[in-house]
Amino acid sequence: MLSSVQKGDMDIAEAERMLRMDHLDSIGGDVLFDESRQLRKNIPEVVYGATKDYGTIAEILKKRSDKLTLVSKVDEEKYAYVKSLVHGTRYVADAKVIISGKMPELDKGTIGIVTAGTSDIPIAEEARVMAESMGVKCVTFYDIGVAGIHRLIEPMKKMIDSDVAAIVAVAGMEGALPTVISSLSPVPVIGVPVSTGYGMGGKGEAALYSMLQSCSLGLTCVNIDNGIGAGATAALIAIGRDR
Amino acid sequence: MLSSVQKGDMDIAEAERMLRMDHLDSIGGDVLFDESRQLRKNIPEVVYGATKDYGTIAEILKKRSDKLTLVSKVDEEKYAYVKSLVHGTRYVADAKVIISGKMPELDKGTIGIVTAGTSDIPIAEEARVMAESMGVKCVTFYDIGVAGIHRLIEPMKKMIDSDVAAIVAVAGMEGALPTVISSLSPVPVIGVPVSTGYGMGGKGEAALYSMLQSCSLGLTCVNIDNGIGAGATAALIAIGRDR
Amino acid sequence: MLSSVQKGDMDIAEAERMLRMDHLDSIGGDVLFDESRQLRKNIPEVVYGATKDYGTIAEILKKRSDKLTLVSKVDEEKYAYVKSLVHGTRYVADAKVIISGKMPELDKGTIGIVTAGTSDIPIAEEARVMAESMGVKCVTFYDIGVAGIHRLIEPMKKMIDSDVAAIVAVAGMEGALPTVISSLSPVPVIGVPVSTGYGMGGKGEAALYSMLQSCSLGLTCVNIDNGIGAGATAALIAIGRDR
Amino acid sequence: MLSSVQKGDMDIAEAERMLRMDHLDSIGGDVLFDESRQLRKNIPEVVYGATKDYGTIAEILKKRSDKLTLVSKVDEEKYAYVKSLVHGTRYVADAKVIISGKMPELDKGTIGIVTAGTSDIPIAEEARVMAESMGVKCVTFYDIGVAGIHRLIEPMKKMIDSDVAAIVAVAGMEGALPTVISSLSPVPVIGVPVSTGYGMGGKGEAALYSMLQSCSLGLTCVNIDNGIGAGATAALIAIGRDR
Amino acid sequence: MLSSVQKGDMDIAEAERMLRMDHLDSIGGDVLFDESRQLRKNIPEVVYGATKDYGTIAEILKKRSDKLTLVSKVDEEKYAYVKSLVHGTRYVADAKVIISGKMPELDKGTIGIVTAGTSDIPIAEEARVMAESMGVKCVTFYDIGVAGIHRLIEPMKKMIDSDVAAIVAVAGMEGALPTVISSLSPVPVIGVPVSTGYGMGGKGEAALYSMLQSCSLGLTCVNIDNGIGAGATAALIAIGRDR
Amino acid sequence: MLSSVQKGDMDIAEAERMLRMDHLDSIGGDVLFDESRQLRKNIPEVVYGATKDYGTIAEILKKRSDKLTLVSKVDEEKYAYVKSLVHGTRYVADAKVIISGKMPELDKGTIGIVTAGTSDIPIAEEARVMAESMGVKCVTFYDIGVAGIHRLIEPMKKMIDSDVAAIVAVAGMEGALPTVISSLSPVPVIGVPVSTGYGMGGKGEAALYSMLQSCSLGLTCVNIDNGIGAGATAALIAIGRDR
Amino acid sequence: MLSSVQKGDMDIAEAERMLRMDHLDSIGGDVLFDESRQLRKNIPEVVYGATKDYGTIAEILKKRSDKLTLVSKVDEEKYAYVKSLVHGTRYVADAKVIISGKMPELDKGTIGIVTAGTSDIPIAEEARVMAESMGVKCVTFYDIGVAGIHRLIEPMKKMIDSDVAAIVAVAGMEGALPTVISSLSPVPVIGVPVSTGYGMGGKGEAALYSMLQSCSLGLTCVNIDNGIGAGATAALIAIGRDR
Amino acid sequence: MLSSVQKGDMDIAEAERMLRMDHLDSIGGDVLFDESRQLRKNIPEVVYGATKDYGTIAEILKKRSDKLTLVSKVDEEKYAYVKSLVHGTRYVADAKVIISGKMPELDKGTIGIVTAGTSDIPIAEEARVMAESMGVKCVTFYDIGVAGIHRLIEPMKKMIDSDVAAIVAVAGMEGALPTVISSLSPVPVIGVPVSTGYGMGGKGEAALYSMLQSCSLGLTCVNIDNGIGAGATAALIAIGRDR
Repeated sequence: MLSSVQKGDMDIAEAERMLRMDHLDSIGGDVLFDESRQLRKNIPEVVYGATKDYGTIAEILKKRSDKLTLVSKVDEEKYAYVKSLVHGTRYVADAKVIISGKMPELDKGTIGIVTAGTSDIPIAEEARVMAESMGVKCVTFYDIGVAGIHRLIEPMKKMIDSDVAAIVAVAGMEGALPTVISSLSPVPVIGVPVSTGYGMGGKGEAALYSMLQSCSLGLTCVNIDNGIGAGATAALIAIGRDR
Repeated sequence: MLSSVQKGDMDIAEAERMLRMDHLDSIGGDVLFDESRQLRKNIPEVVYGATKDYGTIAEILKKRSDKLTLVSKVDEEKYAYVKSLVHGTRYVADAKVIISGKMPELDKGTIGIVTAGTSDIPIAEEARVMAESMGVKCVTFYDIGVAGIHRLIEPMKKMIDSDVAAIVAVAGMEGALPTVISSLSPVPVIGVPVSTGYGMGGKGEAALYSMLQSCSLGLTCVNIDNGIGAGATAALIAIGRDR
Repeated sequence: MLSSVQKGDMDIAEAERMLRMDHLDSIGGDVLFDESRQLRKNIPEVVYGATKDYGTIAEILKKRSDKLTLVSKVDEEKYAYVKSLVHGTRYVADAKVIISGKMPELDKGTIGIVTAGTSDIPIAEEARVMAESMGVKCVTFYDIGVAGIHRLIEPMKKMIDSDVAAIVAVAGMEGALPTVISSLSPVPVIGVPVSTGYGMGGKGEAALYSMLQSCSLGLTCVNIDNGIGAGATAALIAIGRDR
Repeated sequence: MLSSVQKGDMDIAEAERMLRMDHLDSIGGDVLFDESRQLRKNIPEVVYGATKDYGTIAEILKKRSDKLTLVSKVDEEKYAYVKSLVHGTRYVADAKVIISGKMPELDKGTIGIVTAGTSDIPIAEEARVMAESMGVKCVTFYDIGVAGIHRLIEPMKKMIDSDVAAIVAVAGMEGALPTVISSLSPVPVIGVPVSTGYGMGGKGEAALYSMLQSCSLGLTCVNIDNGIGAGATAALIAIGRDR
Repeated sequence: MLSSVQKGDMDIAEAERMLRMDHLDSIGGDVLFDESRQLRKNIPEVVYGATKDYGTIAEILKKRSDKLTLVSKVDEEKYAYVKSLVHGTRYVADAKVIISGKMPELDKGTIGIVTAGTSDIPIAEEARVMAESMGVKCVTFYDIGVAGIHRLIEPMKKMIDSDVAAIVAVAGMEGALPTVISSLSPVPVIGVPVSTGYGMGGKGEAALYSMLQSCSLGLTCVNIDNGIGAGATAALIAIGRDR
Repeated sequence: MLSSVQKGDMDIAEAERMLRMDHLDSIGGDVLFDESRQLRKNIPEVVYGATKDYGTIAEILKKRSDKLTLVSKVDEEKYAYVKSLVHGTRYVADAKVIISGKMPELDKGTIGIVTAGTSDIPIAEEARVMAESMGVKCVTFYDIGVAGIHRLIEPMKKMIDSDVAAIVAVAGMEGALPTVISSLSPVPVIGVPVSTGYGMGGKGEAALYSMLQSCSLGLTCVNIDNGIGAGATAALIAIGRDR
Repeated sequence: MLSSVQKGDMDIAEAERMLRMDHLDSIGGDVLFDESRQLRKNIPEVVYGATKDYGTIAEILKKRSDKLTLVSKVDEEKYAYVKSLVHGTRYVADAKVIISGKMPELDKGTIGIVTAGTSDIPIAEEARVMAESMGVKCVTFYDIGVAGIHRLIEPMKKMIDSDVAAIVAVAGMEGALPTVISSLSPVPVIGVPVSTGYGMGGKGEAALYSMLQSCSLGLTCVNIDNGIGAGATAALIAIGRDR
Repeated sequence: MLSSVQKGDMDIAEAERMLRMDHLDSIGGDVLFDESRQLRKNIPEVVYGATKDYGTIAEILKKRSDKLTLVSKVDEEKYAYVKSLVHGTRYVADAKVIISGKMPELDKGTIGIVTAGTSDIPIAEEARVMAESMGVKCVTFYDIGVAGIHRLIEPMKKMIDSDVAAIVAVAGMEGALPTVISSLSPVPVIGVPVSTGYGMGGKGEAALYSMLQSCSLGLTCVNIDNGIGAGATAALIAIGRDR
């Protein structure tokens, strides 16, 4: 069915069919899965784990059974409880993401992921897991800073060598890295502001503002700490290019 | 030279060469053009016209002679003065953009551009001119609203039929359109918040916040009223796909 | 006396009488109940529980004896303590509300309550308990999203079938649901922004701004997480219609 | 058709029919009217005039011919130009609203409108014109202050005597009036913050915050200066009650 | 010496003398007491306890020995530790204030203190203890609301009967009480916004903005939760009047 | 009647009488004067002139005939028009205030007024005119800075010599003056932040925040540029002391 | 006398002498010059011209007669009027600064000044004039960008060659330049955010936040557009080094 | 190599050499130390400890072995764990800083450090440790207030006597101290706002705004609580002067 959507036959009758196609699995009567999303975009279900307790997460994963599902922003301790309740999951500690179900082959193209500092790595890893869940390979360069600009050149060369379709640039504090990366890059760059910093503007606002103000064309951004969103978009770009 | 950059041979020696390659045309001794940008990204020079008087704009365009240059956010009256000083320019009134130099063939792929209301059209047109200046074709659907959701379906079908590589979704007020478009779209969507609205959040902040908070994967955004940035990124995605 | 107030005979002499009618039950000398409120508006006493300890809550409920009283924003653990001190209460866990006293028949009309996601349910349930405490029936549709717009149509049909007098639409994140619901609804919609989200605008501001900016006529809103206020207003509308 | 919508027969087939029913009158190819809105909600087309020049307004009104249309936030000078281009309009100077087409009988119920000061009157008048355009009668009490609380009692009595279905309370500065009105009122109150004031919070934010924080149940609000939205919602409540 | 200051003989020589007069008691070498403050203003030393641990507080109180000292924002548990280390203190639990040293006679005049709700009482009590430490008597009326305006009249009468020199009006949420009190009061009113509330503006900003925007002449304000400052100023007014 | 209010005989019957006493002079049907205010507080009517055109101001002044009235924030040009329409007014250019009616004797006590810079003088003069309209004498010291602290000592001495009942301290930029003045003053200080400054915090917010954060007891404040409010409060303090 | 201050003999007696030394030239009775400032810091009088009319500026300059005085933020048109009233001034158009009196020899050391774009030049020039008025030489590099990082290296080399004591780095938009410059610089860098940009953070806030968040040690900043302050501090550093 | 950098021989070849010089010690593959920073600026490595757990800190310190390293914002408890894992460190409790490696002789000049209150001392101590780690001596005066201005004179005299090259002025609350210090000081002052305060502006914003708005030339600032940054810059100034 994916192809028909991509070919553009979607009309109201089909919308209705999609509606019925939604199996509307419910958890406690109030969770409606959007089954057709994966068809439309090749994006697996992602559950925002930060505000859910381990019981709810476990229940959701059981319902999903073997369909690929990511749960983001889950700390190690909470995962320990989830693991005791559901089989067949694994945990990417650096990304704070639970993966349930089978990850695809990484054959849909390549993206680059870079971070300014070490504190930005969890968000970068979240982006990596997201992209890989969509079949896209990632080349990563972490802690390449901006205070030491000469350190950017080698990673930039390697990403261009890998023919990346897009670059995810992750930075907190003053958030200058995505601008600098974008100025050197021939492909789109997606900036991810990170909530590291202190004082005025220190919850990621300074970084976000920097990316929004950037005068480097080719740079767009997502909200603070949204590694999932950046990874998904970069992967969509790679998939589009890979057809 | 473009190919070598894209193949990844860029090293420090080459960076130095690029540096020399910058002809450093100066206007009054203080404007350094970044000649190599077009090579690296296929993006023409864009001058932000809002804060420059007509004399400065004219001087810049003369220096650039026949190289493709866009000047954004120029109102009709200011253009009249510029026109009297420089030959060979034209003015896209809906986009408030001056084009100087020859626009390329539109053979690098296609993007979609949609707006929520009529007030959003100038920003959408800015995006269109930008994308076309990079050789990318645009299919546009303006004023498709969000208060009347049933009006979205036809444009969505047509964009998918046109095999767009990315969609630019432009919206002021509450800025819900990009989220809705992204939920229906198999390709990346770039949201552009517009500074229409009133009262609390009415200078585009409400629209920007909506796009940053959006739970629809595949949506990134640029700053308020930045049609140029959105058009450039969408076009880069199309060019990447078109290779 | 209710009828006379509603018929408009209130004058200063009566205001004075009302004043005397206030029995001014005091707790530790400093809590003055506003007994006449229930007369004027048919709204039971609501105590904001978030900032009160269990001892204070218990004391208030004892004073109120069998008069209908709601205590909002009370977590399960705090209720356990309250319960050990006062008899005759019950706890609506999904709404985090304690009910003390007898709830009325649900014979004063009907309202609809919808949520965008599962995280919004506690606030929606708070609105439901509030409306029911005023004798108004609620039809609820939770987690109907906005990213999957086709899922809105069925709930919309059912609410119109139930002849709802008003709809409470509860949404966090980008808060687009109330706008979309309002665009499809022939009755007033009350938007409730919810403090779910992340990064810039993520404490409910993005959702609130969206609702304030909405271009859909018929939509008003309350403050972030104020399910009580939205439920009370929707119920007042139903009661007015039901006379 | 209104009745069938209100009876709940709307299904996807009908949605499609509605879609076709949209005549999609276009102005310069980019304005799509939402004809079905009046059917669904009994609300005439409202055009936001503040950001449109007189030529565009005139063109829109000609297209609409004799269908009832309001244009808001138009100053006297701009109206003079519009008037010279289109026949059959009239201008409500206090409300800064142009009315084109025939206003309905005022037989759909009654609402009250009050203001704190004289500066709030234009917004109150905007609400009045909006409500009257939906067939709802308005009783108004302007400049009743809050600094002189004893002045509130008489208007309150008269509104209750008139059996108003809802009250629109308009206030700038510290915005306390809607809270006070709501505490005395047996019907829903819609607060409209006004952009009068000075210094910190003086563009209507203080008034908006006051209304959002209000502890008086039955009060909802709209954005700063949105008289149109408040009038439309109050009228919807009156219409619902009047059936 | 007080009288000479008040008579205006202060010159640079005297400033130098004052400097020497500062005994510069040091705690760990880094706390310089400003001994002359009590002389200049009749205000005892006030230590902000919120950010100091019990050890530091105890050490300060020992140094001060029997001179009157208040420590504000100290919770019960912390006081228990302080008490075990220093003799001769007492704790006003409602105000969260430690008093060390002898309180003066209450013979310097009278002020009124009112609160809108019960949550505002700790701040009001802080103001009371402060004023009493300066020899000023307080008449208090707590939880007189604003949603039930008729409840304001009795307290207002009693304060005027007591010939108060100033009124401290304490309110969180929408903060309307000080405006209303000031509109009825012949003496200066000092508004204290309180950090109770929720959502947008709910940390006391809404209340502060209301007080700043108030159109009632005679109202000034202090920062959020600053009961000490309001009590001190009201007491200074009473002392001035009492001479 | 003033004395009876101050003696506290106000009851509901009297409130009703006051209500009738309001002659409710109307201008165009919508301006209700609060005649009893002068009785209750000795404060003349003050009209905020910034947002009113000269016609409206003239009409108000005619209605008031010879009763003392101030119109604030009126520039010289607007006054020229007002003057041509109403007799018997005069204009205090430094304060931008129109005075209509007879000013009282200055026999109700004394206050001090100081400014940090020359830009703060118009606001200080506004405070002076206000206080004088209530019969209170003012001693003023303008441009005494804070960057040159040694310049504060002489004015401070002179104000203490004049036995001022309160000091109004006016400052823009970083707004440190009121804190410094209050630290040296035995009487209450009312800070007025002024909207001079630049960049971050430069519309008076920095000055307001400074005054709110001040650790000097005895300092309260009003909103940005509110010289009228500060003058009225300082005068009320002087009047209270002068009885 | 300068040397004695620098040697540390300042005591209270001397402070008093300084006080008398203040000649307290007054303009209209309300401008007190701080004559001793030049002695203490070697900084000429700087008058903020933006909020003063040409008459006031002319009057101030006449009073100052031949003492060195700068007037900042004066546009060309306003200067034309000033010039017609006072002799012996000159105007630095790029800096929008009037210079009155004799500038010193540039023999007190050297600083560097760089800008990111051409829009930042007026602020940079303001810094240059300020530093030169203190006898410090400036080497300047304007429009060196950050989007083209390779363009930074040459200016950096030249500033180090010139042995600059400090660098003023001026940037609007995302404000990354000062961070990058500081990372390459062995001397202190003073960042000046500029009010160029657009949308969210576009009035210089994004640039200011970037500089405050910068992780590059050695970077401090001044407020938005404060070229005067940055130039003065950089010059003070050079003067200290030059002794 | 330091001298060659300072003499300005840095070219691209050297930049490349520097690049190779970066030994790129990695911790877990993702931490790249910037070894050349110490060479370029004489600043030791500083690790921001607040967001790192004790294990990571220990690992970093082991890698660094005997090279001078500071770890900031580490509380006592966390240090206890670090200490158990790494030898040869010491802890400056007042500054919350771990020092690893050998501190230099204090022979590079002198700076002054002052605080307004006792709460500001930890940030001042952080600045002191930073400056000493660069070989600069510090004279400190803590809790000199601003509410008691006469207490500033003695410290000011002593700092001038010590011939300080710069002064770090640390203040929370209303943050007036740096302005006052700068007005008396012949050398540059670096303001550090501190996150002490309460209510509106109480997380250090009021203090930061004050410093940004300050009209005293010679004052720059760093972000809230950034003692490290202020100490480093002041030390750089001293080192430059000391050559």
